[in-house]
Amino acid sequence: MDFASDNASGASDRIMQALTAANVGYAPAYGADAATQEAQARLSALFERECDVFLVATGTASNALALSALCPPWGAIFAHEDAHVTGDECGAPEFFSAGAKLAGLAGEAGRIAPETLREGLSRFPRGLVKQAQPSALSLSQATECGTLYGLDEIAALCALAHEAGVRVHMDGARFANALATLGCAAADMTWRAGIDVLSLGASKNGAIACEAVVFFDKALAADMAFRRKRSGHTLSKGRFLAAQMNAWLADDHWLALARVANARASELAQGLARIAGVRIAYDVQVNEVFVVLPAPIDAALKAAGARYYDWPARRLPASLALGAGERFVRLVASFTHKPQDVAHFLAIAEKAA
Amino acid sequence: MDFASDNASGASDRIMQALTAANVGYAPAYGADAATQEAQARLSALFERECDVFLVATGTASNALALSALCPPWGAIFAHEDAHVTGDECGAPEFFSAGAKLAGLAGEAGRIAPETLREGLSRFPRGLVKQAQPSALSLSQATECGTLYGLDEIAALCALAHEAGVRVHMDGARFANALATLGCAAADMTWRAGIDVLSLGASKNGAIACEAVVFFDKALAADMAFRRKRSGHTLSKGRFLAAQMNAWLADDHWLALARVANARASELAQGLARIAGVRIAYDVQVNEVFVVLPAPIDAALKAAGARYYDWPARRLPASLALGAGERFVRLVASFTHKPQDVAHFLAIAEKAA
Amino acid sequence: MDFASDNASGASDRIMQALTAANVGYAPAYGADAATQEAQARLSALFERECDVFLVATGTASNALALSALCPPWGAIFAHEDAHVTGDECGAPEFFSAGAKLAGLAGEAGRIAPETLREGLSRFPRGLVKQAQPSALSLSQATECGTLYGLDEIAALCALAHEAGVRVHMDGARFANALATLGCAAADMTWRAGIDVLSLGASKNGAIACEAVVFFDKALAADMAFRRKRSGHTLSKGRFLAAQMNAWLADDHWLALARVANARASELAQGLARIAGVRIAYDVQVNEVFVVLPAPIDAALKAAGARYYDWPARRLPASLALGAGERFVRLVASFTHKPQDVAHFLAIAEKAA
Amino acid sequence: MDFASDNASGASDRIMQALTAANVGYAPAYGADAATQEAQARLSALFERECDVFLVATGTASNALALSALCPPWGAIFAHEDAHVTGDECGAPEFFSAGAKLAGLAGEAGRIAPETLREGLSRFPRGLVKQAQPSALSLSQATECGTLYGLDEIAALCALAHEAGVRVHMDGARFANALATLGCAAADMTWRAGIDVLSLGASKNGAIACEAVVFFDKALAADMAFRRKRSGHTLSKGRFLAAQMNAWLADDHWLALARVANARASELAQGLARIAGVRIAYDVQVNEVFVVLPAPIDAALKAAGARYYDWPARRLPASLALGAGERFVRLVASFTHKPQDVAHFLAIAEKAA
Repeated sequence: MDFASDNASGASDRIMQALTAANVGYAPAYGADAATQEAQARLSALFERECDVFLVATGTASNALALSALCPPWGAIFAHEDAHVTGDECGAPEFFSAGAKLAGLAGEAGRIAPETLREGLSRFPRGLVKQAQPSALSLSQATECGTLYGLDEIAALCALAHEAGVRVHMDGARFANALATLGCAAADMTWRAGIDVLSLGASKNGAIACEAVVFFDKALAADMAFRRKRSGHTLSKGRFLAAQMNAWLADDHWLALARVANARASELAQGLARIAGVRIAYDVQVNEVFVVLPAPIDAALKAAGARYYDWPARRLPASLALGAGERFVRLVASFTHKPQDVAHFLAIAEKAA
Repeated sequence: MDFASDNASGASDRIMQALTAANVGYAPAYGADAATQEAQARLSALFERECDVFLVATGTASNALALSALCPPWGAIFAHEDAHVTGDECGAPEFFSAGAKLAGLAGEAGRIAPETLREGLSRFPRGLVKQAQPSALSLSQATECGTLYGLDEIAALCALAHEAGVRVHMDGARFANALATLGCAAADMTWRAGIDVLSLGASKNGAIACEAVVFFDKALAADMAFRRKRSGHTLSKGRFLAAQMNAWLADDHWLALARVANARASELAQGLARIAGVRIAYDVQVNEVFVVLPAPIDAALKAAGARYYDWPARRLPASLALGAGERFVRLVASFTHKPQDVAHFLAIAEKAA
Repeated sequence: MDFASDNASGASDRIMQALTAANVGYAPAYGADAATQEAQARLSALFERECDVFLVATGTASNALALSALCPPWGAIFAHEDAHVTGDECGAPEFFSAGAKLAGLAGEAGRIAPETLREGLSRFPRGLVKQAQPSALSLSQATECGTLYGLDEIAALCALAHEAGVRVHMDGARFANALATLGCAAADMTWRAGIDVLSLGASKNGAIACEAVVFFDKALAADMAFRRKRSGHTLSKGRFLAAQMNAWLADDHWLALARVANARASELAQGLARIAGVRIAYDVQVNEVFVVLPAPIDAALKAAGARYYDWPARRLPASLALGAGERFVRLVASFTHKPQDVAHFLAIAEKAA
Repeated sequence: MDFASDNASGASDRIMQALTAANVGYAPAYGADAATQEAQARLSALFERECDVFLVATGTASNALALSALCPPWGAIFAHEDAHVTGDECGAPEFFSAGAKLAGLAGEAGRIAPETLREGLSRFPRGLVKQAQPSALSLSQATECGTLYGLDEIAALCALAHEAGVRVHMDGARFANALATLGCAAADMTWRAGIDVLSLGASKNGAIACEAVVFFDKALAADMAFRRKRSGHTLSKGRFLAAQMNAWLADDHWLALARVANARASELAQGLARIAGVRIAYDVQVNEVFVVLPAPIDAALKAAGARYYDWPARRLPASLALGAGERFVRLVASFTHKPQDVAHFLAIAEKAA
């Protein structure tokens, strides 16, 4: 009953097998191998466009490298005030960009509204030397609240950003989960809607450690090989990153894994919603359930060994404010969870209610 | 016949098995798992001292993180002018330290002589505000020339550094190979000789991607968790790094692998030395052979599909200067090479001679 | 009628004379001169404590250097969301600190309330690796709204910060104006209330370009000579900075200048408050008047050649929200303004009303 | 008898008068004033080309800002190993560029030979990801040895650099002294020979603190306003920087001052050369004399109160190596020195000989 995070899970069997299969013979180092070329080709095919791809081992690296390609040291990066890049990466975007400013934007359920972006952009006038220059917008799909932007919402935000000379990054740590829900083409959710660069994460959804920075505008990637190398993110045995990515994409394995995780979250949410006193905070659109639990239920679950994180109550919308004896928590499902794991969890909660 | 680098090899079977074995159940993320604790304990036992250990996926990250803990942005880092940190990491030490200066020191066969260090230190007087402040010394063991420092040489260099208020880092990308040759205790080659922090590399010697920053002085590690996180080097599924390190250390697997690689290099060197016109550039103390080849031999080997790198002729000592029709090349052996691989290589060379 | 900023004024006659007087003979460079020593002694005497003093030419340098001494690259700096360090220095604190995060705090009339600081601190738990570490609090005295913190308010904020292991910086770009109003000792407004380091500005109040970073805790200044030098802020002919500071402090010249500026602002505010439709936004405690003007008055003043800045309407408290046909503007008085300048300005405004 | 440095002198009377004259009325801040526009126009006229000009208060800022416009964080900056940017600015170029590598080149009498540059460039192959990318060449005119590059030498070095995709910076801390000697047009010594950006120093030659970054290629200046601001080098009362520059350039005042300094150095050198045992180290082409003094002469001069710096003996060419009882020292003349100052100095030296 570990719902602490999707990164508490291990890797899928197919990916472990791919690692072993990759461990044969010699291969040129630092990404000059055939498997890395294959990954670039697979991603270009997936996105229906020739992309420049850089594989790395962590989502923080992927996000920070991508943003550093969009933003000078004196730039401003707009992101949701609760986005991973804003508050969960110990200042990685600031480090990789040599000092950019994260401009946090408020927004319900993790989504930035176009009006909010417009207002945010207006605070950083282009050319006003005393202020950080508007440079990048980072959208999380899925969001930190487990919700999704619709394709039209992404397009609207990208259009606003581009009008202002601002490039758009998508933090796709849970891109597969999002795509599985929306059921659209990967291109629709990215460059066709205006995304310039994507951080595509496999680590939370089946890989041991594999993320891709995918540039839809190849011109933005001109310096990326240097940025990756000097930040220590160019793995010497690149074939092992590529092997993960290739197996993940093959036969839509990635979407199959994501669908399992999403289904488990949906079951969790539906089950919890039926329990008196439990309140689901946001629409459950991918594999995360944010939920207000009565303290006895929380206590019973933890006593039974369930793992999950308390979540900051200040992030709850005013309409959902915590009452006395309530806990706000996050549950994350992964491809490793079985229906019976969820059923067991729900049974404990129901009993405690 | 791929002698391009030890990172052209894959991983050892034991390490692949360990990865698979680690892929069971749930584990706390970001290094809070049991396997990571075990790695810390194993390394402390190996070094006969409680160490602070930080696992990362690349040698560049390991070196740059370690150096950033020793050196302020206005510091000078002394290293051999041909050291990996000086010229092969695209400025990673400068990036992680926020601008430190790499002060390259000359030295025969990759080794810094005490007099050279003393002279180098004298160029950066402590407290002279217009100059970078002497902060760190980085020693590569084995060196970039495949040679070794003796324990007394390490001790002498560390003593000089410490007298000058300078902390000492060891780049141990090939630490196992060095230890296998010297046959001393790991502690003897490090903190007992004065080393403050070690970058211990497993990636070139059996792992898929695993390096440890090992702090012998725990006070120096105070900020390392933040440094690692913001540089994107804290892997979410830390168990997979730890699994590699634990399997690598268990039953002296690491030394067994290193001994194989060293033996192959020794065979290569002995065989080549017998061929007319071939000159071995440096003592072969670990798994690298730097050698001057007559052009016909070089051509025959490459025609037969052998892979290895040309090496900059300027690095040759004056006494070994290249003649017309000669090539300076580097051959690196790994644990994956069989005696017959070497024999085949030598046969081609002999035939071309 | 230039009320755009106090830096639109020149220097006081005494300061110009001091510059000329300093231009005699030879003096050691880079602050090793006698005048710089005198400045250090004068400031130590003024603050009733031995201080470490670093003279620089700009307020941005003074603030950013001071903050960089308090905050590691992974640190968070708390400041009012409209503070100069947050939004008017093009990311200088981020640059000098190598990537720190400015955590903007809301607050009425430019002041941070203790509860707001407490809540802000709670968002950055000490030791939580994924987040910036709470490191510095920057208080502006006078604030960006031309208001003041009382001594007890400063003490309360400093106490909260210190409890959380956070050091406190004071941006004293208008320190003289603040001290002239409060009438207390300089020590009372700084270290006795808990301030660790002060950026003391003379440039807006009589100097041509002179600011002092004043460390009350000398341990914090250990690296400052290097920080100043490598940022290019160590003037070679340091005597000319020191000459300004010494003349500014001598005979309380600085306070005399500040009192003139404050008096003019007070006259402006009183005169404007009597005009129908004009609303003063904040208490006028130093030399700045933030005021809502009916459009016809604004137009008449500008037509008559008055210079002043429009101010962002979003900074107005909700209770003061702009009506149609209103302008929110800032007027800044300096020591160079005469009562008749103010009278002339007011006459135009009154006529237009 | 202060020959320690040209920055031990004060400012010229004309420049002090210009400061006083500038202290009238109000002026827009941050360089938006008329005097700053005049400086831009004067420099464009002087260089016979429309330039982008940025005034700052120190040479270190001027150099570091200029280099940061030419060099990405992963770039290499080529400069003489004894150049000011390499060893006398506490890592300012590294700081402003966010981590670039200073590649020191050897060279007799402070000059880089074309072969040396060619060899240096060959060490940093374009596109080799593991190495810093060749980005900038910095030439000091006059050099750190008080010598000059001929126009053809500058052109040859610039041509080599440009062929390699490397832009060229000139450190003109003593540009006026150099131009006074060469007697050519300012354009000849800069952009006509291939210089892309010049750091033009007035501080050592008559100003209190004034330097100009002069971009001959305006495209390179695109981000400079942000770079200057965030480094704290945009003075609020910009008119006082501009007033110095304008007075310095007017009526060739700058060249008149430089000629005086150069003449004094020439007199010093000629007088010293006549004294037995004294050896002049380098041609005296501007206002610096590097000289080997017998210890008794050195002692007598210092006893008489003469100030000058000992210079590192390791910088002497082998042919000039110090004998026992000899001192290597630097004497710098300025516009403030009178012929009798030199005569007095020489008389003491002669008497001690």
